[in-house]
Amino acid sequence: MRILNWQQIEAAINLPMMAEAVEEAYRLASAGKVTLPPVGHIAFPALSADCHIKYGHIEGQDNFVIKVATGFPNNAQRNEPTGNGVVLVLSALTGEVRACLQDEMLLTDVRTGLGGAIATRLLARRDAQTCLLLGTGSQLRWQIEAHRQLVPQIKRFIVWGRNAERADQAIKTLSYSDDVERTENLQHAVQQADIIITATGATQPLIDSDWVKPGTQITAIGADAPGKQELDTELVARADCVVVDRVAQCVDHGEVSHAVKSKRLDPSRLLEMGAVLESPTLGRKDDQQITVADLTGIAAQDIAIANAVLHIVKA
Amino acid sequence: MRILNWQQIEAAINLPMMAEAVEEAYRLASAGKVTLPPVGHIAFPALSADCHIKYGHIEGQDNFVIKVATGFPNNAQRNEPTGNGVVLVLSALTGEVRACLQDEMLLTDVRTGLGGAIATRLLARRDAQTCLLLGTGSQLRWQIEAHRQLVPQIKRFIVWGRNAERADQAIKTLSYSDDVERTENLQHAVQQADIIITATGATQPLIDSDWVKPGTQITAIGADAPGKQELDTELVARADCVVVDRVAQCVDHGEVSHAVKSKRLDPSRLLEMGAVLESPTLGRKDDQQITVADLTGIAAQDIAIANAVLHIVKA
Repeated sequence: MRILNWQQIEAAINLPMMAEAVEEAYRLASAGKVTLPPVGHIAFPALSADCHIKYGHIEGQDNFVIKVATGFPNNAQRNEPTGNGVVLVLSALTGEVRACLQDEMLLTDVRTGLGGAIATRLLARRDAQTCLLLGTGSQLRWQIEAHRQLVPQIKRFIVWGRNAERADQAIKTLSYSDDVERTENLQHAVQQADIIITATGATQPLIDSDWVKPGTQITAIGADAPGKQELDTELVARADCVVVDRVAQCVDHGEVSHAVKSKRLDPSRLLEMGAVLESPTLGRKDDQQITVADLTGIAAQDIAIANAVLHIVKA
Repeated sequence: MRILNWQQIEAAINLPMMAEAVEEAYRLASAGKVTLPPVGHIAFPALSADCHIKYGHIEGQDNFVIKVATGFPNNAQRNEPTGNGVVLVLSALTGEVRACLQDEMLLTDVRTGLGGAIATRLLARRDAQTCLLLGTGSQLRWQIEAHRQLVPQIKRFIVWGRNAERADQAIKTLSYSDDVERTENLQHAVQQADIIITATGATQPLIDSDWVKPGTQITAIGADAPGKQELDTELVARADCVVVDRVAQCVDHGEVSHAVKSKRLDPSRLLEMGAVLESPTLGRKDDQQITVADLTGIAAQDIAIANAVLHIVKA
């Protein structure tokens, strides 16, 4: 068994190569070629904490993957990370444990960043240059890095966070930030943006439908659990094209769930990322359309990226 | 995260200390104080292979445990182990991954051996001296070692295996074997035995009820999946006391399932190990009774033993 720590995993990150693996995972997931058993879950109610075990196998791949992720919110009181976990990669041919990736959530961050950039590359206008990013968590770095590599026509990133100071600090941690600016005027930034990515923990809509100009591509990645919402329900209902990573998951608790539950959006209109990657003409039809992607995160991404790490380090 | 390999884990094995932890786990499991979510499972049908993920938390303990175990029968064709896996120990207070135990199934073997010896100590006659062991797999070693430590009044171990040569080889691998002999006459050995442990992969009864003398304690550990059977259904039906590690599991696929399904045994008669450990008078009443224990293996044992390893190495 190979053990890789955070530093070794970070050194192995190759966004273009990993993007290919994640795109393939989206395609195979939508084609029903990924075995994804129900997510395992154990709760620690006294601490409002829990542990999820996501695992699965992409048909034809030599490895399968088990991702263990814990969430212990009280750790924040001691200034320690609330999320922990490891990713195990096992041979689908012999059952041997090939690697234990002590990624400290890094691979989840990377695959989430790549998911956002893949959605932008697939759905944004060809001439899109301005990307607005809401949220100052770890996705600030990974959305920007993934977009720089996958969507190089972007000239400018605008960052908005509810806490201006935290937004400034987050921008400072970027290795390069000449193309990044911060705004406090969200409405104005939305009006300017060609691409909007929401990566917050919001439980109330942050973006009003009226602010959004025709031709905008919006990707919402914050709604990863019930009760979260970042976009005006009207915006989702009004969008010309709504793409999700997994229909069942997004209808249950994703950004689109609010529009579906209030009958503003017919779930039959939802397209899966994998299907649109396979047939891009299913996506944006012209430069005036508003497109929305709702990414709740799927285990196929985790499998793909863990496999990619092993491939890169030739473990 | 501490990583312990097979050698380090073997060096940490302390059977009496681990037996205490496993007994406590049985007691707490029967008292409903172990959180045991449904076992995760992913299959690789083309190889008749699969992977189980067992996990849980014993109330009040600082750690919880995730055990990953794979079974790839085709590995045997290359003379490689068919079972692989790791055990993860995580903090139930912070979610941190405290240890990854690369035990290569060693801890499963040890907890299974301990389960057998705990059942014998609990249910056998005080003057029981002869222990018959059926099967020549890894349990040969661990049942004998655990019985030597927990049931020191045993003077003689008799081993029977369908394949005599394999039985001899298995006995040769023991570090000490002066008290171990091999038999080819199973009926005669059963008639002599005070304690019988069946640890085979049999799918047809090996032991006829008529062979078993009054006062015998029989522990069946081979029936860990549907379709397996080691004891005559009549023997289970006739037993004065039938103890199981977990009622739901044993009624589903354990040794007792055959007697229950054929209505020869009323499941209300089944007693759980934890309950009998708590109140030993529930078990054997006199030296003439026949007692049967059906041990299918429960995740609480895995949690207890992994925690014990960490306690012993002070990780």
